[in-house]
Amino acid sequence: MREVFQKELVEVQERLYEMAADATRTMENASKAFIRSDVTLADQAIASADQMSSKALALDELVIRILARQSPVARDLRILVSALRISASLERMGALAGHVAQIARFRYPGSAIPEALRGTFIELGALDVELGHKLERLLKDPNVDVAKSIQAEDQRVDELHRSVFDTVLGEDWKENAVFTVDVTLASRYHERFADHVVDISAKISYLSTGDWNDTI
Amino acid sequence: MREVFQKELVEVQERLYEMAADATRTMENASKAFIRSDVTLADQAIASADQMSSKALALDELVIRILARQSPVARDLRILVSALRISASLERMGALAGHVAQIARFRYPGSAIPEALRGTFIELGALDVELGHKLERLLKDPNVDVAKSIQAEDQRVDELHRSVFDTVLGEDWKENAVFTVDVTLASRYHERFADHVVDISAKISYLSTGDWNDTI
Repeated sequence: MREVFQKELVEVQERLYEMAADATRTMENASKAFIRSDVTLADQAIASADQMSSKALALDELVIRILARQSPVARDLRILVSALRISASLERMGALAGHVAQIARFRYPGSAIPEALRGTFIELGALDVELGHKLERLLKDPNVDVAKSIQAEDQRVDELHRSVFDTVLGEDWKENAVFTVDVTLASRYHERFADHVVDISAKISYLSTGDWNDTI
Repeated sequence: MREVFQKELVEVQERLYEMAADATRTMENASKAFIRSDVTLADQAIASADQMSSKALALDELVIRILARQSPVARDLRILVSALRISASLERMGALAGHVAQIARFRYPGSAIPEALRGTFIELGALDVELGHKLERLLKDPNVDVAKSIQAEDQRVDELHRSVFDTVLGEDWKENAVFTVDVTLASRYHERFADHVVDISAKISYLSTGDWNDTI
């Protein structure tokens, strides 16, 4: 029974890893689509965000089946409950990347980014993709030491997000409201994507250190 | 054992109801704060959004304890897994209301809404509060027939959300970028709040009708 359970846990972990890889690839395509006004990449990102919803549903069903068959307690139970939360967060990351791609799609063949913010969004996209890759590593091996660099990169994302507002609200900003709306939302989506990476990595390290108030 | 379990399920249901009432009150205060530039109400909304995070955590711990002690299967297990998801959604609703309040706080003593959109945001706020109250009723009694009116109100929220973009992107829009950014984000937060109500109500009706592909 224990052996079956261990195999099932490995399957959950692998599926979470796959979803993290999907979310990262979706943001990579969405960011490129947004920066280069590439409608093919935008469509790919939108389609893969949709597919992630089905994968999240399938993973949740697997977790529910394991809970029903194995009736786990203590740490095993917490791992499975965390898996449900992580799957919801990963699905949301895919959706946020999909939203970035949709902005690129709406403005096509025009660009959604004014020149003044091109560098900022290139960096925001690269940071989100980097954060996604670190999350993949953490899901492969919960003991890998990436927590600090995830924190640092998330702080840089927050800085860039605020700088988008500073630019848009500054005296030199002469762009029309279409650009203002697009960059406001796109920046917010990039920032939320990074937030989810931080949330998930906190859940993983909480589980691997066992540093929780175990009340069961 | 069964009796204890039923009592525990009732407690979970009551706590979800309380969280829905909190989220609704938070949005009510946030909406008023946003419309009237009322900084006291804004602070109340921001504080209650924070409190909701602690309540969500406490509820999740309760659910995990019940899962560990009772090892439920089939429908009982699904109810508890749904409770975890609903609690996360309710916490997020509180956070979104808190974000609306924060915009009011940032612009105080000025207003975050230009006159042209005042009516729209009054209606958006009223719809979100109405949706919150319907969710409370549904959490008290999963058989109450509010699904259709929730759908209709959510559609109206989506319409208003799009109309904010139409206004901001229209030729008559002469407001500065501060207003453009504020109303873009505030409208998005109102729309996401309504989305969560729709998601939660779908989960509740799925459970109460038993209309799912029960693979356990």
